[in-house]
Amino acid sequence: YGTPIVTLEPGERKSARPRKVGMIFSGGQAPGGHNVAAGLFDALQALNPDNRLYGFLGGPSGLLDSAYKVLDSALVDAHRNTGGFDMIGSGRTKLESPEQFAKVAENCKRLEVDAIVVIGGDDSNTNACMLAEYFLQNDIGIQVVGCPKTIDGDLKNQQIQVSFGFDTATKVYSELIGNIQRDANSARKYWHFIKLMGRSASHIALECALQTHPNLALISEEVEGMESTLDDIVGQIASAVRERSEKGFNFGVALIPEGLIEFIPEMKALIAELNDLLAANDREFSAIAESERRIAFLSERLGSATAHVFDSLPAEIKLQLMMDRDPHGNVQVSRIETEKLLIVMVERKLEEWRDKGEFNGKFSAQSHFFGYEGRCAAPSNFDADYCYSLGYTAACLIAAGKTGYISSVRGLEKSADEWQAGGIPLTMTMNLERRKGRDVPVIRKALVDLASAPFATFVAHRELWRRETRFVYPGPIQYFGPAEVADRTTLTLQIEQQG
Amino acid sequence: YGTPIVTLEPGERKSARPRKVGMIFSGGQAPGGHNVAAGLFDALQALNPDNRLYGFLGGPSGLLDSAYKVLDSALVDAHRNTGGFDMIGSGRTKLESPEQFAKVAENCKRLEVDAIVVIGGDDSNTNACMLAEYFLQNDIGIQVVGCPKTIDGDLKNQQIQVSFGFDTATKVYSELIGNIQRDANSARKYWHFIKLMGRSASHIALECALQTHPNLALISEEVEGMESTLDDIVGQIASAVRERSEKGFNFGVALIPEGLIEFIPEMKALIAELNDLLAANDREFSAIAESERRIAFLSERLGSATAHVFDSLPAEIKLQLMMDRDPHGNVQVSRIETEKLLIVMVERKLEEWRDKGEFNGKFSAQSHFFGYEGRCAAPSNFDADYCYSLGYTAACLIAAGKTGYISSVRGLEKSADEWQAGGIPLTMTMNLERRKGRDVPVIRKALVDLASAPFATFVAHRELWRRETRFVYPGPIQYFGPAEVADRTTLTLQIEQQG
Repeated sequence: YGTPIVTLEPGERKSARPRKVGMIFSGGQAPGGHNVAAGLFDALQALNPDNRLYGFLGGPSGLLDSAYKVLDSALVDAHRNTGGFDMIGSGRTKLESPEQFAKVAENCKRLEVDAIVVIGGDDSNTNACMLAEYFLQNDIGIQVVGCPKTIDGDLKNQQIQVSFGFDTATKVYSELIGNIQRDANSARKYWHFIKLMGRSASHIALECALQTHPNLALISEEVEGMESTLDDIVGQIASAVRERSEKGFNFGVALIPEGLIEFIPEMKALIAELNDLLAANDREFSAIAESERRIAFLSERLGSATAHVFDSLPAEIKLQLMMDRDPHGNVQVSRIETEKLLIVMVERKLEEWRDKGEFNGKFSAQSHFFGYEGRCAAPSNFDADYCYSLGYTAACLIAAGKTGYISSVRGLEKSADEWQAGGIPLTMTMNLERRKGRDVPVIRKALVDLASAPFATFVAHRELWRRETRFVYPGPIQYFGPAEVADRTTLTLQIEQQG
Repeated sequence: YGTPIVTLEPGERKSARPRKVGMIFSGGQAPGGHNVAAGLFDALQALNPDNRLYGFLGGPSGLLDSAYKVLDSALVDAHRNTGGFDMIGSGRTKLESPEQFAKVAENCKRLEVDAIVVIGGDDSNTNACMLAEYFLQNDIGIQVVGCPKTIDGDLKNQQIQVSFGFDTATKVYSELIGNIQRDANSARKYWHFIKLMGRSASHIALECALQTHPNLALISEEVEGMESTLDDIVGQIASAVRERSEKGFNFGVALIPEGLIEFIPEMKALIAELNDLLAANDREFSAIAESERRIAFLSERLGSATAHVFDSLPAEIKLQLMMDRDPHGNVQVSRIETEKLLIVMVERKLEEWRDKGEFNGKFSAQSHFFGYEGRCAAPSNFDADYCYSLGYTAACLIAAGKTGYISSVRGLEKSADEWQAGGIPLTMTMNLERRKGRDVPVIRKALVDLASAPFATFVAHRELWRRETRFVYPGPIQYFGPAEVADRTTLTLQIEQQG
């Protein structure tokens, strides 16, 4: 704790002693990862042509198993500006115990690797910080530098403007949303329900809404903040369908964040109760063969409030909740097809209204889920430049003897020649959180702030976007052509930095 | 019949009498439609500034209802190079009866519209030909010119090299397939089953396979030609999964054409028998409440061969077959989620093999369906230029007094300045087909020709692409930059024109 922020200034390049640096990708793919490697490689070569870069394979487990590839210019050049992490792979092993840290130290010592660059999200950078502390306390002499990666956009704070990959992924999703909006507006007969990747925060849904102006965009954080029920949400969507239908618009587009279900308080309660119930009655429940009787078995045993929610769900979803369980027997929330759940429930609500003479429009819906389509796209110019700079900066931090820092590039709302490179002590980005009964320092996941300027901008426009048809069609990412097309940043970043 | 092919040559522009020309979009959207309008508009203006272009609204029904918009330069300019048909909308009304033709004539006479441009697929152009014949025979003096549109790529023949929209749609799908392949190759834990729009032909799947080199791509026409059973197909996919798994590749990508089910002979038979059975036993069947008993009811009454196929299907698919019926009570084949059907059946086949000790890999799958994502994309440079040329050419054909022609631009494999504009008599593109008991001339839908060069190219490479990981990641459509990036055509077109 207590180390200062570092700013890199242009200066003379000093020749340094030859070093070996290791790097890993940790967690889900994000566009631009290979450019972090390219920036690292080029900076290391510029510092001393005898420097070596090792890519540990398959994520953190590569450090534990000493599985690596030497990254030479042929390999790095072949991957510049490409998407994915396939040059060395990634993985989800968590590096967090002292035993693992000791193993990493042992492997690095043997390979003479004396600096590690960890490219990951909030958890991976938290663990990178712990690893750096361990090495410092035990006088091991290995430096650790992090890089902020995640398409979800939930690794940002006072010091980090944005994680890499968010720009590209939201542009790919916005391209597709725009294309579907154009289709909706041409065919004028479908509502499209589009689920977007990102379970823990709704930054992606918010950014895509700002880029494309859909008729509806749900923001999980708002749903939680308002303590909305599932019926509230269904009613809100059905009202929008009715309102547009009355103007002759029997079509529309609704964006749904992947994590929505887990932010609805009553659904969270239902899932918890189902987990307990299924665990306590496993044998009896498993003996029931017919789906209808399985549903009745659970419904009878749930508390009255949760039974009410459970009974309101479509049969397919009830079956999904019962069938798709993880190895611990828990309901797999991520498998719930929220977009289809909402379509069926909105359909039902509209039929109720129709019976009462309160709706006489048409409602026909299509569902989509975009995730893998954007996670490994080739990086936008922004992400390509940002990642290269993050990698280059990481090498400079290492050369300057820093450890426990995260590579930082700021001023990202300006053109790349005005960006400011430096390093932020990882501890400065952390807060104490209670985990497993004790306070531990972690990088807090940044959820959508309902008081923020990007959310306020969305709120200021959403009624207009809902009632009228103000779709924007951003088109595909461009690498060539005018700067206002090829080099624009996300609207979230622009609005945050203006406001 | 018997009119000649027309070739347009550069020449002096003669000022012509002022005319009013009408246009319609017919059927599903395809990228570039607005540029057909732009080309038409510009040519009409160049021929005589007093010419007027009327856009009939909502497709063929606009001609019947006399619903139209005058397309002026402000409206046309706002839609140049944009996707979709939202400038005037489209529709699926079929113009085919003499009563409809008479109504169109009456409406056009009143508006003084004396030429109509029909932008549509095989059926719409067939009907455009009939309309032209009707106008000729009844001496009505209204010209009709068609334009070849459909993303499916099944409107092509000796005279028409390709329909517009196929280029853009396959590029959007290939971008997404490439991104998913990169993800598959980075995460190395999923098989992705990707269904692609296009029920009647597999040109889209074939073109995307040529662009992206997936591990598997099913071609419906081959399935039908080989008389493959569903079990054959499942076995073929499961074998590929096992083969790759033995090399340590527990991941892959498989492309599935939307219409596959209807090309599997035994599935076609099952669906026909189900339709008869449900019609004959409607009351009795509807009285059964429980899904399991409904399934048993049908299974007992099917013939032994079809019952065998039915019994092999996963429960969800059986339910889909029973539940999703059209207003005539028929099974809705298009609603069947073929990609999920195949995943469940491949999973089951692999488990059988595992029990016999014949498989010990992992199989985890994700499903995708791409259709709306590409149908309304902004046109690629190729489609933008091609469509503009089709529209411009249509206006020239009208000025030259032609009727019953389809606008033709050939030499599309070369650069745009070498393209050859002209007109093909629609009758020349037609064949006699037996419909409703009599021989009628129609434009035959072009299926994938198993003797063609593009299919042969695919067959020559598919084993390699299956066994190894030879993914290609085409990236998003580019509008600026080097010609080899921004102006390339589809591989289908290139290979066809070379061969």
